[in-house]
Amino acid sequence: MEICLKPIGFVRHGFRDEEVKNSVLGVPGYIEVLPEYAEGLLNLEGFSHIFVIAYLHKTREEDRRVLRVKHRRLLRFGVKIDDLPEVGVFATDSPARPNPLALSILRVRSVEGNRIYVDNLDLFDGTPVLDIKPYDRGRVVQDVKEPWWAEELEKRIRGRLGLNLTP
Amino acid sequence: MEICLKPIGFVRHGFRDEEVKNSVLGVPGYIEVLPEYAEGLLNLEGFSHIFVIAYLHKTREEDRRVLRVKHRRLLRFGVKIDDLPEVGVFATDSPARPNPLALSILRVRSVEGNRIYVDNLDLFDGTPVLDIKPYDRGRVVQDVKEPWWAEELEKRIRGRLGLNLTP
Repeated sequence: MEICLKPIGFVRHGFRDEEVKNSVLGVPGYIEVLPEYAEGLLNLEGFSHIFVIAYLHKTREEDRRVLRVKHRRLLRFGVKIDDLPEVGVFATDSPARPNPLALSILRVRSVEGNRIYVDNLDLFDGTPVLDIKPYDRGRVVQDVKEPWWAEELEKRIRGRLGLNLTP
Repeated sequence: MEICLKPIGFVRHGFRDEEVKNSVLGVPGYIEVLPEYAEGLLNLEGFSHIFVIAYLHKTREEDRRVLRVKHRRLLRFGVKIDDLPEVGVFATDSPARPNPLALSILRVRSVEGNRIYVDNLDLFDGTPVLDIKPYDRGRVVQDVKEPWWAEELEKRIRGRLGLNLTP
């Protein structure tokens, strides 16, 4: 069974892939919705945040066979490789996964014609976008619980950066 | 440009489509991850909620050409058709959209082998699942803003049901 989809738009920002990888809170830019779908943006203005489901087109074929990962991105925050737990790909947002889909929560700056200007893009320039949905109040979960390793790692990053990582 | 994906699992609950449509908070059931991907669930236990990206396989071909919708689901909450604003599909979670993808936030009951037992499934029995991601604290947006029409409609539903609609 194969499910085939077409991009409804693309990520645009002009930064190099390495710059996106090394940014902590992402880069500013916009989602360019293809003209034939632009009507679908009607009334999106007014939502402070959106979900973007994108296809990570630079993921290699062998990355789609990965089922366990370590959060290697954390190494540059001073976390040692041995401290990193090995976790299933469905317990992370690692780009290495059977279907390389990204789920980004982006703060909306403005909607202008077929462009949605956003702040914190963690996607490479030219990434195909499959869908856009509003982040409404119903998406805010009040009593989120995480496993200890996820809490611990998040704490270390926040401590290191002195940052609130919420989008 | 076509992007082709394979299901990593399926929604299972045994309720009829009409029962799912008429349920307000969804139905209980499980996500059955295909055995070849089950290892990807390692360490998912401990997250209270997950995102599920699913493919709405019962969406008709003509529904993929829809770009503006009214929230007809609201009619049964006493909202009149004329009160409903027409909105772009990317400002709603309507199943009629160019790529019929669903983004569900589900409360996890337990993870047992290749099954994730969840509470509030708003997906039909047998729906193909494309990806699963943890809902971690970083996904909670503190200062969500919505357009007036979305707030108004949400208020009416909550009032009618006396319910908190958060998952």
